[in-house]
Amino acid sequence: MIIMLDLYTYKTFNGQQVSILLEELSLDYQVKKIDLMKGEQRKDSFLKINPSGRIPAIVDYTDEVPNGFVITQAMAILIYLAEKQGQFLSKDAMLRARTLEWLTFQATDISTNIFNAFLLGTLIKEPEKKAAQILKQRAISFYQVFEKQLTKTPYLAGDNYSIADISSFAVINSIIKQMPTADLPNLQRWFDTIKNRAAVIRGLNVPN
Amino acid sequence: MIIMLDLYTYKTFNGQQVSILLEELSLDYQVKKIDLMKGEQRKDSFLKINPSGRIPAIVDYTDEVPNGFVITQAMAILIYLAEKQGQFLSKDAMLRARTLEWLTFQATDISTNIFNAFLLGTLIKEPEKKAAQILKQRAISFYQVFEKQLTKTPYLAGDNYSIADISSFAVINSIIKQMPTADLPNLQRWFDTIKNRAAVIRGLNVPN
Repeated sequence: MIIMLDLYTYKTFNGQQVSILLEELSLDYQVKKIDLMKGEQRKDSFLKINPSGRIPAIVDYTDEVPNGFVITQAMAILIYLAEKQGQFLSKDAMLRARTLEWLTFQATDISTNIFNAFLLGTLIKEPEKKAAQILKQRAISFYQVFEKQLTKTPYLAGDNYSIADISSFAVINSIIKQMPTADLPNLQRWFDTIKNRAAVIRGLNVPN
Repeated sequence: MIIMLDLYTYKTFNGQQVSILLEELSLDYQVKKIDLMKGEQRKDSFLKINPSGRIPAIVDYTDEVPNGFVITQAMAILIYLAEKQGQFLSKDAMLRARTLEWLTFQATDISTNIFNAFLLGTLIKEPEKKAAQILKQRAISFYQVFEKQLTKTPYLAGDNYSIADISSFAVINSIIKQMPTADLPNLQRWFDTIKNRAAVIRGLNVPN
């Protein structure tokens, strides 16, 4: 079997968003592990793929670009793959706007803040613990808006599971143990539903 | 004339991204100013539009939804309007992936960090100046990647001006005076080109 897609990834919530979607789409892909703990994202071989040195990145080998078309940035990859396969992002203007709205909300207001909290609280030489806590609380407080939506619809953007759910799930999964969900029963219900999808279980385990 | 679109906004880089695009598209819209300095984003009347209390938001009055279809989140609004009008976001899979990649890069890695730097350094009661500086430097350092791209192509995603450029321009415009651009000549050239577009000049001035 010829593998038509490479996934450069590591087991972080950004990488897992893409591996979950690839599993949901039942696409064959080759996992190229970039070990962030060993600094492999700063090696020349990877910087050729993504000059900004971050995972995830995919290389799609298409008829048009047999040498491979590179796409970086989790959110852009999710939209590209969903559109390519015609799943998890509706063609209907209003339904897709709703999905992209939740996807953006999660990507800009939540996961970036959670990453920055980790950066300020752990990654840097002299941690800025208080600032990290402020950003983390800010991110988590937005889940009240998710809860409100999930009292009305089973998934974020409505009746259908979409890339907005996949993206948010991967992030929440990484912090759920540190996050009180007693006042977020619908978010918890949504989380549990997604957690049990076979593709999600497989996708979370990439790279192993 | 019947105005078919409302824009809830304030003169921030997130609001300006949308007003610039509306001007580029020559769409008629009614400006609903939400004065963030007066806390109008926390009023019930606005929370009905956007439960998370942030601008920009648009209400599009369509045949399908004569009472108005609300969309929030700058990036989701940009994609929605670009697709609706068939401009500034190509239908070609590869060209659109490139545009969405730059748009996501700017929205998640840059503008969120710049906003967080402002939050930590200015907005909160006891500013976390050092943390703010770390995030700001991190955001600005990504512009080296923009510079590299802009040595190869006139616009971020290639030969054509797109929503990725509009989004990035509005953010850079807000910090360019504090950002050394001597080693970013191509970014400066790109910035100057966009700055002089009539639609951009009008869009930056919304709400006035």
